[in-house]
Amino acid sequence: MTVTAPEGFRAAGVAAGLKSSGAPDVALVVNDGPDAAVAGVFTTNRVKAAPVLWTEQVVRGGLVRAVVLNSGGANACTGPAGFQDTHATAEHTAAALSSAHPHQIGAGEVAVCSTGLIGVRLPMPTLLDGVDAATRGLSREGGPAAAEAIMTTDTRPKTTVVSGAGWTVGGMAKGAGMLAPGMATMLCVLTTDAVAGPETLDAVLRAATRVTFDRVDSDGCMSTNDTVLLLASGASGVTPSEADLASAVTAACHDLAQQLIADAEGATKQVAIEVVGAASEDDAVEVGRSVARNNLVKTALFGNDPNWGRILAAVGTTSAAFEPDAVDVAVNGIWVCRAGAAAEDRSKVDLSGRDVTIRIDLHTGSAEATVWTNDLSHAYVHENSAYST
Amino acid sequence: MTVTAPEGFRAAGVAAGLKSSGAPDVALVVNDGPDAAVAGVFTTNRVKAAPVLWTEQVVRGGLVRAVVLNSGGANACTGPAGFQDTHATAEHTAAALSSAHPHQIGAGEVAVCSTGLIGVRLPMPTLLDGVDAATRGLSREGGPAAAEAIMTTDTRPKTTVVSGAGWTVGGMAKGAGMLAPGMATMLCVLTTDAVAGPETLDAVLRAATRVTFDRVDSDGCMSTNDTVLLLASGASGVTPSEADLASAVTAACHDLAQQLIADAEGATKQVAIEVVGAASEDDAVEVGRSVARNNLVKTALFGNDPNWGRILAAVGTTSAAFEPDAVDVAVNGIWVCRAGAAAEDRSKVDLSGRDVTIRIDLHTGSAEATVWTNDLSHAYVHENSAYST
Repeated sequence: MTVTAPEGFRAAGVAAGLKSSGAPDVALVVNDGPDAAVAGVFTTNRVKAAPVLWTEQVVRGGLVRAVVLNSGGANACTGPAGFQDTHATAEHTAAALSSAHPHQIGAGEVAVCSTGLIGVRLPMPTLLDGVDAATRGLSREGGPAAAEAIMTTDTRPKTTVVSGAGWTVGGMAKGAGMLAPGMATMLCVLTTDAVAGPETLDAVLRAATRVTFDRVDSDGCMSTNDTVLLLASGASGVTPSEADLASAVTAACHDLAQQLIADAEGATKQVAIEVVGAASEDDAVEVGRSVARNNLVKTALFGNDPNWGRILAAVGTTSAAFEPDAVDVAVNGIWVCRAGAAAEDRSKVDLSGRDVTIRIDLHTGSAEATVWTNDLSHAYVHENSAYST
Repeated sequence: MTVTAPEGFRAAGVAAGLKSSGAPDVALVVNDGPDAAVAGVFTTNRVKAAPVLWTEQVVRGGLVRAVVLNSGGANACTGPAGFQDTHATAEHTAAALSSAHPHQIGAGEVAVCSTGLIGVRLPMPTLLDGVDAATRGLSREGGPAAAEAIMTTDTRPKTTVVSGAGWTVGGMAKGAGMLAPGMATMLCVLTTDAVAGPETLDAVLRAATRVTFDRVDSDGCMSTNDTVLLLASGASGVTPSEADLASAVTAACHDLAQQLIADAEGATKQVAIEVVGAASEDDAVEVGRSVARNNLVKTALFGNDPNWGRILAAVGTTSAAFEPDAVDVAVNGIWVCRAGAAAEDRSKVDLSGRDVTIRIDLHTGSAEATVWTNDLSHAYVHENSAYST
């Protein structure tokens, strides 16, 4: 049931005609309250799409009653006119909803998310007709349709539900990658019927994304549109502890992040890079990310080649604390590298499956972190060379 | 005539049997003097191959009479035993040369370069037999054979000759990439018969590599073995000004760098990213490098798609000074993006040829820099997924 699993939310997904395929492309998520608390995390790309600039402002107010999302166009790099388009979308959505919502809604309470091609204006009449249709279609069962309407190169919708004690977290996401940096655009809407204010939601969401979406690195490319929103309706009447809420939101983000990496463009491998023995968590993340982004490592994995030399070379480009002749590397449990040199027979490594675990022991401290990525395949090149033409 | 074009140098290239293909794999370049000045620039990867650790020490002395190079094995991540192998190679080369050289040669005057698979010990008897054969084959005409013997995935040898007033610079290089960071290993030996001391050579070489090899970014991956050496024999008896020597060495490095990028693994496009209007040269290089490393930009170019949105998104990940709504982007002369939004019709962009120029105007200052790269193709994925298996 995705974003409509928690009490107090309705959703819809419709085909407005933004996508030439005719697939669903406009989604609406409405928070019927009683609360309308919100928090958001956004791309750190300095080239931000109009909907990101808009929604950052809206979220700053701590109150959002609706999120309107479209695929079929990112509305990024579209100049002042593009920003006006986003503003008009929020205005239109607020007006359309006012007859279908317990509260009078202002445009400043409507978050907007877009995904698709960069640099192209959205066909506004088509989009706004879609908003009207989505408003008419809103229901407590609309979560799955909303999740489907935000897909771009995704091959399947990504949804999650995590249960608390008398409250629930629901979520949907799209994208073949991650938050920051991100491959293609990553959009995620999380909902909960727990009672929680904007400050709590912000703390909880930042803690969750830091160890989930932020550690998924599909192709090292950061999108202009990445957005993660967390909405709370308070409809359960239950106020969980911040720790319990954080735990549930983190679980929801982890689940969605794993679904994203599993569906990454053209991937044939799902790779967990576990860095242990680091001097700090930052060091561990830096090392994991460097390996995750290395095209030579990623193509080797596509070729079922446990090429630990390329892994070590990627570790060597970081500023993390380690001694090159003290690093151990295991691929799927076989320690092919010990003390910076060849160890166990690499032919023992079984890379025939989809899941790959690379474990790197820096032998410097006790901090650790895991970064998730995928391989670099012919299909990735094909998909991304043919996307916009 | 490559490294043997200047007076005072002999070279050879032989097939020792390190490569299973039977292709030439051991090269020797000897400086017969009267001078034996040297300078070197090395990978900044912290995981350095044994020959890099050795040669850094040797070059620090400012005097090198011979460079022995092998393909067919990088001798990287091979531990203390690998370092002993490099030392033994230098010892053996020094001894073999002593009967064939005007000076008594010590191991500390022999630079060693290796390229090939990481993590595998070199078959030393095979390599040392190759050194003996190369010593016997040394000649004033040996430059081309040496250039051929250092090839790995290169499809052709890379050589250059630049003439000064009574003196000459020659050079050879291998690699499908660059110095720092580098794709596969980049090795380069430059020779000159100009009279110049180690300090002058060092200044000249650093100035040259900074604007040539350092700005070639094929796949963002930094090798463990990258080495560029500049040897001066003084055999011409002419002492050029430092500016004249720097100009010639820079021209030689530029020529070789362009040959490297033109032969990059699987590339179908040769891409110059010209960044202008930057607040500083560092900003311009950072922006150029970010675009050069972006897999989404690179796959778009492979697909003949002038996807300026991806270019702008890559610019947005940098810390360079710019305003997103002031950036212009041209692809092959068509300004598809003005002020951060769509401008000229992208269908006017002709990407049918091999050469692509991306021009990015940050409109912030007057500094500029060019970074060279290539596209990301199916052939890159194929070559690098099949390399070591």
